[in-house]
Amino acid sequence: MSSLQPPDPSAAVAPIAATTLRPLPLGAAKITGGFWSERQDVNRKATIPAAGDRLEEAGTLRNLRRAAGREPVADGFTGRPFADSDVYKWLEAVAWEQSREPSEAFAAWQSSTSALVADAQEADGYLNTHIRLAVPDGRFTDLEKGHELYCAGHLLQAAVAQYRATADRTLLTVATRFADLLADHFGPGRTEGIDGHPLIEMALVELYRTTGTTAYLDLARYFVEARGHGLLVPPGHHGPAYFQDHLPVRDVRVLGGHAVRALYLASGATDVAVETGDTELLDALRETWQTMVDTQAYLTGGVGSRWYGEAFGDPFELPPDAAYCETCAAIASVQWSWRLLLATGGSRYADQLERTLYNAVISGVSSTGGEFFYVNTLKVRNNAYADDQRSAVAGRQPWYGTACCPPNVMRTLASLDQLVATSDDSGIQLHLYAPATVMAEVGGAAVGLEVTTRYPWHGRVTVTVTESPETPWTLGLRLPAWAEGCKLTINGTEEPVGEVGRTAALERRWKRGDEVVLDLPVRARRTAPDDRVDSVRGCVAIERGPLVYCFEQLDQPDGVVLDETAVLPGELVETDRPELLGGVTTVSVPARRRDGSGTTLTAIPYYAWANRAMGPMTVWIDAP
Amino acid sequence: MSSLQPPDPSAAVAPIAATTLRPLPLGAAKITGGFWSERQDVNRKATIPAAGDRLEEAGTLRNLRRAAGREPVADGFTGRPFADSDVYKWLEAVAWEQSREPSEAFAAWQSSTSALVADAQEADGYLNTHIRLAVPDGRFTDLEKGHELYCAGHLLQAAVAQYRATADRTLLTVATRFADLLADHFGPGRTEGIDGHPLIEMALVELYRTTGTTAYLDLARYFVEARGHGLLVPPGHHGPAYFQDHLPVRDVRVLGGHAVRALYLASGATDVAVETGDTELLDALRETWQTMVDTQAYLTGGVGSRWYGEAFGDPFELPPDAAYCETCAAIASVQWSWRLLLATGGSRYADQLERTLYNAVISGVSSTGGEFFYVNTLKVRNNAYADDQRSAVAGRQPWYGTACCPPNVMRTLASLDQLVATSDDSGIQLHLYAPATVMAEVGGAAVGLEVTTRYPWHGRVTVTVTESPETPWTLGLRLPAWAEGCKLTINGTEEPVGEVGRTAALERRWKRGDEVVLDLPVRARRTAPDDRVDSVRGCVAIERGPLVYCFEQLDQPDGVVLDETAVLPGELVETDRPELLGGVTTVSVPARRRDGSGTTLTAIPYYAWANRAMGPMTVWIDAP
Repeated sequence: MSSLQPPDPSAAVAPIAATTLRPLPLGAAKITGGFWSERQDVNRKATIPAAGDRLEEAGTLRNLRRAAGREPVADGFTGRPFADSDVYKWLEAVAWEQSREPSEAFAAWQSSTSALVADAQEADGYLNTHIRLAVPDGRFTDLEKGHELYCAGHLLQAAVAQYRATADRTLLTVATRFADLLADHFGPGRTEGIDGHPLIEMALVELYRTTGTTAYLDLARYFVEARGHGLLVPPGHHGPAYFQDHLPVRDVRVLGGHAVRALYLASGATDVAVETGDTELLDALRETWQTMVDTQAYLTGGVGSRWYGEAFGDPFELPPDAAYCETCAAIASVQWSWRLLLATGGSRYADQLERTLYNAVISGVSSTGGEFFYVNTLKVRNNAYADDQRSAVAGRQPWYGTACCPPNVMRTLASLDQLVATSDDSGIQLHLYAPATVMAEVGGAAVGLEVTTRYPWHGRVTVTVTESPETPWTLGLRLPAWAEGCKLTINGTEEPVGEVGRTAALERRWKRGDEVVLDLPVRARRTAPDDRVDSVRGCVAIERGPLVYCFEQLDQPDGVVLDETAVLPGELVETDRPELLGGVTTVSVPARRRDGSGTTLTAIPYYAWANRAMGPMTVWIDAP
Repeated sequence: MSSLQPPDPSAAVAPIAATTLRPLPLGAAKITGGFWSERQDVNRKATIPAAGDRLEEAGTLRNLRRAAGREPVADGFTGRPFADSDVYKWLEAVAWEQSREPSEAFAAWQSSTSALVADAQEADGYLNTHIRLAVPDGRFTDLEKGHELYCAGHLLQAAVAQYRATADRTLLTVATRFADLLADHFGPGRTEGIDGHPLIEMALVELYRTTGTTAYLDLARYFVEARGHGLLVPPGHHGPAYFQDHLPVRDVRVLGGHAVRALYLASGATDVAVETGDTELLDALRETWQTMVDTQAYLTGGVGSRWYGEAFGDPFELPPDAAYCETCAAIASVQWSWRLLLATGGSRYADQLERTLYNAVISGVSSTGGEFFYVNTLKVRNNAYADDQRSAVAGRQPWYGTACCPPNVMRTLASLDQLVATSDDSGIQLHLYAPATVMAEVGGAAVGLEVTTRYPWHGRVTVTVTESPETPWTLGLRLPAWAEGCKLTINGTEEPVGEVGRTAALERRWKRGDEVVLDLPVRARRTAPDDRVDSVRGCVAIERGPLVYCFEQLDQPDGVVLDETAVLPGELVETDRPELLGGVTTVSVPARRRDGSGTTLTAIPYYAWANRAMGPMTVWIDAP
């Protein structure tokens, strides 16, 4: 079954059967500056290198050395059973970074760590250091909690990234050997079973797209379809929803249980649906996504409101103070929205992806790139107790015993260029507005774009055509749902822009030098909550462009108690503060203290909170 | 050290050094009918007998048989490490019931089960079936999670109850042998250590009061003082607050971490403070209690808002939908309030005790006595997902894998008579209003009272003096804080009643036949929340006397969606419904649907919800 016949790695995105939009080939879109570029720089220069040290300190790399026989196997395993996955996600980030800009240091890490992973693989292709070192007879005996297929999934994803980004086949060889073992072991007529933590589904489809091996797609489809039939008998506190085994995937309409598990599964199921042309499944997933966004997502895009079980709450159960909003859940939501954007072309998916990236994902990493939030609360009260388990209150931490979130942020930022644009037969669509160059083929002809913008701080996005065929093609520009009143000019002439919350399709015979200017109304605005969300009834939040704002204690006048202050009607005053938090625009608003006296509150972008000091913070504030 | 020299068991409440009020001797106050009597009957006739079967089915009694050598030891242990405590709490309930009314069946259960417990005790006095059967070398090696002293504490409490209620010394002998071992083992200069789950502190003080052995008080004081100094190094997810080891007890001002642990510890610390005359500690506890009641308790009296870690939330973190409110936490709160009532005489403690009993405790058991809530939510939304772990939504269950709550309810109801009245040198105080007889000594002379009332349904409480000395003494009647406008007559003559929220002290030369009538304004009222509780901002709740009300879906007109309905100003209509839920008064209120159309909502007492069907329910409702 080792049918490794990959095409040219730089083009290694196989045709996706039922999608509307296609990802561009790797490297076709490059973020060249601005907001995201600054974060990618920190990710590349600080976060990823430091993570190598953290993986060493935590014993995660040592597990691999022991499993590889480079250190005594008998010394055992350190960490949680899923520790291997931290290394794989880090390797994925290392790979994507090299597609952005080659680096000797990154190449050396990739080479040495991939060789270590290969050495740790067992003769038959199996690979999991927890099993190897701690439960040698335990292969596939604890599918509920063992995370073996979860770790395998991250291995496969890292391998695909490495191959696509660098043409290095080291991990891909390891991954296909393991995937072949899995395909031999699991499935109808073989061992019936699913993993307690989904992820393998997505990874198998990606490996299928890269290698063309249909057995991987078949296995992914099996893993999706086998859920909800009681294959897992979860012991202990958590019920089947936690493990996403409470319902067949195609019967789910409201997500429940563990949020990251639910969203990785939904992403994998979306992959399976588009690759197999399963429109019934795709329709169910779209309906479920809409319910999530309408009733189970915070304003930040954060999902999974419950600490207990790291789970989705019921619709409208969105308390800001008790918000869990795991960073990984936000990342998984981005992955799902991206897949549904490709599948359908609907700009609502890109809107939510953008909201989640700007707010719920990057809140998870400090401005210096060295500390991480696992939990992304929307409110810290006065005198909140900073339990050491409550990093939501204690502040971002350099690493975690369960270190899933940090390397997940790393691979997300390192692969962000891939989310900027897509193409279809008619043209190119821009989804994320950032200084960028985009090169793509439309109808076999080369198209080039250059985007300049100071978004999200300023609303002007200038798109210059740098290369174009003679024939007409369509430039798609996402008009965010909040962008009512946006304006569009082409070569200085204003064009009707139509409704927002859709992608404007500008079809013409484009010429090099044509300039499209989209002016998005990036202005501070007040957002009212759905009145079915109890805990923010009577409140407002401040938003500006794609950014959600928050009030952090240290920006307020002395003596202001945020929990006891209400904002008043009146002008929202915007101030560019280049010296603050790497450069932000603050928003000030008139307010009233509990004693009736007036004051002024100042808000900063939510993603930037907890970078100066920990203290009270709130996104929603009373607005009587 | 086995200095077992107990006094007459019926009077076995040793002098309590620094208390203001004294408990009456066991049997001196008897509830003779009415609301609580009905629940005690169900407890006696249905709940406690069925629990014997549940303890058998769960393997909990079998653990004791194995540890006793009556079944093969090698067959191992079943259940959670703290399973023994379920048996002890059940034995405590069995004992208290016999002080209310002797019973052959109860005596037989007591005799056989106590003998079994005695047989399971090891030669040196140690007793814990989990250690004996599952970790024979593990004595006191896992104080964080092992629950050995927690189980010991419940054993001691059951032993004291059994001895006081029935003069049976079987368990008391077991308990003192074990307590002697603990006093030899733990303490300064011996093994320094504390249990991850407090309880032993209270139990040791009770055993000291019963036996006079000061070593038990010394050990209790040690266990209280040793906390907050890092003796526990908790592994895994939970920080030191979970185990109540984050701060020295006397430095705590806001409760945090696991609620039941926090409250059992606070109760034990209160016992230690009054027995040792430690007013600094007592003052700290009083301040902490007030903060809990003002900022961390739900309207029902329920405490511990967080599912995650079964923990106290920060002040004003009281989401009704995500309320945890473990039944055991409510019971522990009652125990703490009772101790502070005795220590200080403050009627605020009795007010909170009453609120908690009527709402947060008995919501934990079904009307038939056969099913239990572990979690007592204040709101179930439309379409809430009934995960099998979420009994808050799935309904009360016959038993739990962690079965702490059911027998805790049993012993609470079985010992409720003891909370009706207290005495001091000047007279008798009535705290809970129920049909009852009270016999006590005041200044060496016998005083008798008879109370008749239909409280809480009706507000009239008639107290008749049935026996009195010639000398004057004081009758104390608690005036609940909600009872503004209450009236008092003595032998038909109205007396000034003064402010509510205190105990009215009626001093006179009472004669047999004197009749005091207290008319409490038991009328439906609207209660507004503290506006610092986000999640109920703009809402009201209905209360009536000590009862909190709720809106349950099945009492509402067809098509009403509680989440989308607001109550309007207008009359609260009370209806006595003797046929409903064992007899309740319902309250109806005008309301408006989301579409603007008018309707009427009907509320029932919160304790009675989830007895007919599971569905949407809310205590707080929008009131624009």
